[in-house]
Amino acid sequence: MRSSRRVYEGRIINLRIDDVTLDDGRTHAYEIVEHPGAVCVIAQPTPSEIVMIRQYRPAIDRPLWEVPAGKLDSGERPVECAARELREETGYRCERVRELWTFYTSPGFCDERLHLCLAEGLTAGPAEPEPYERIQVEVMPLAQAWEMVTRDEIPDAKTQIALAWAYRKRIGT
Amino acid sequence: MRSSRRVYEGRIINLRIDDVTLDDGRTHAYEIVEHPGAVCVIAQPTPSEIVMIRQYRPAIDRPLWEVPAGKLDSGERPVECAARELREETGYRCERVRELWTFYTSPGFCDERLHLCLAEGLTAGPAEPEPYERIQVEVMPLAQAWEMVTRDEIPDAKTQIALAWAYRKRIGT
Repeated sequence: MRSSRRVYEGRIINLRIDDVTLDDGRTHAYEIVEHPGAVCVIAQPTPSEIVMIRQYRPAIDRPLWEVPAGKLDSGERPVECAARELREETGYRCERVRELWTFYTSPGFCDERLHLCLAEGLTAGPAEPEPYERIQVEVMPLAQAWEMVTRDEIPDAKTQIALAWAYRKRIGT
Repeated sequence: MRSSRRVYEGRIINLRIDDVTLDDGRTHAYEIVEHPGAVCVIAQPTPSEIVMIRQYRPAIDRPLWEVPAGKLDSGERPVECAARELREETGYRCERVRELWTFYTSPGFCDERLHLCLAEGLTAGPAEPEPYERIQVEVMPLAQAWEMVTRDEIPDAKTQIALAWAYRKRIGT
């Protein structure tokens, strides 16, 4: 049993408090962030490389190496979003996109779900960033990218998951 | 340059709006969720297994298989938090904890950083869950857990990263 009250409605996220009654009759309040969901994209010009981007992230006040990613537009399918974000952020066009699996980024307090997508059949082209985006693109060797993860130089969840998939694929598991 | 206003202060998270002025003079508003940070724990009774928990997650209204994890208490070191959460959620005591690396769960709008920790020297014991926690513990074969990831049956970011680390360790890379 739960009751719910909205405390903030924003441009990208909403915040609500749910009072959930447990099986022992006690009620516990949960702060819940609502997010539209997003995609992240594995794009490999060759099997030993991966397309990475670097951008400043205001929420953590630092730049971060990440795989291309972005929020789902209303009604947009994850594979369409992946092709769009890859093109806008990096300039790469792709012939096809396959969704591999999903993950909640922080299910303790947030409903954001990311769709891990693989873009294949790549062709380089001009990027189309949003006016507020400043994005550096680099094609990085997989081995170097994972080394950077282990040195805590790529502290981004979706990127670590994308690299794990690409690595397992590379070694044939 | 930025100005900042707090719109919500909660029990676990806060929400603020930052107006960030870019190099072209334009101002862009960012919704930012503040979180105290957390740990997740790799605990392997044998090299081919991993300790997993299953619990209902109100934010996504479903139960989820996850590695043990939890928020940092004020002033608590990640390795201390990892040993505590492992004991409370699963009953396993450990002789030592090592921090492997970190990741931001969703750096586009949230400052939550997770510390990926490895707990070694395990001894089973009684769990000590919070009154509101209902946690099922299972020691799962690594291979089975990764299979479940690929079938979208473990859609949790921290758990996918923990399994990726354990798998690479297992095959000696």
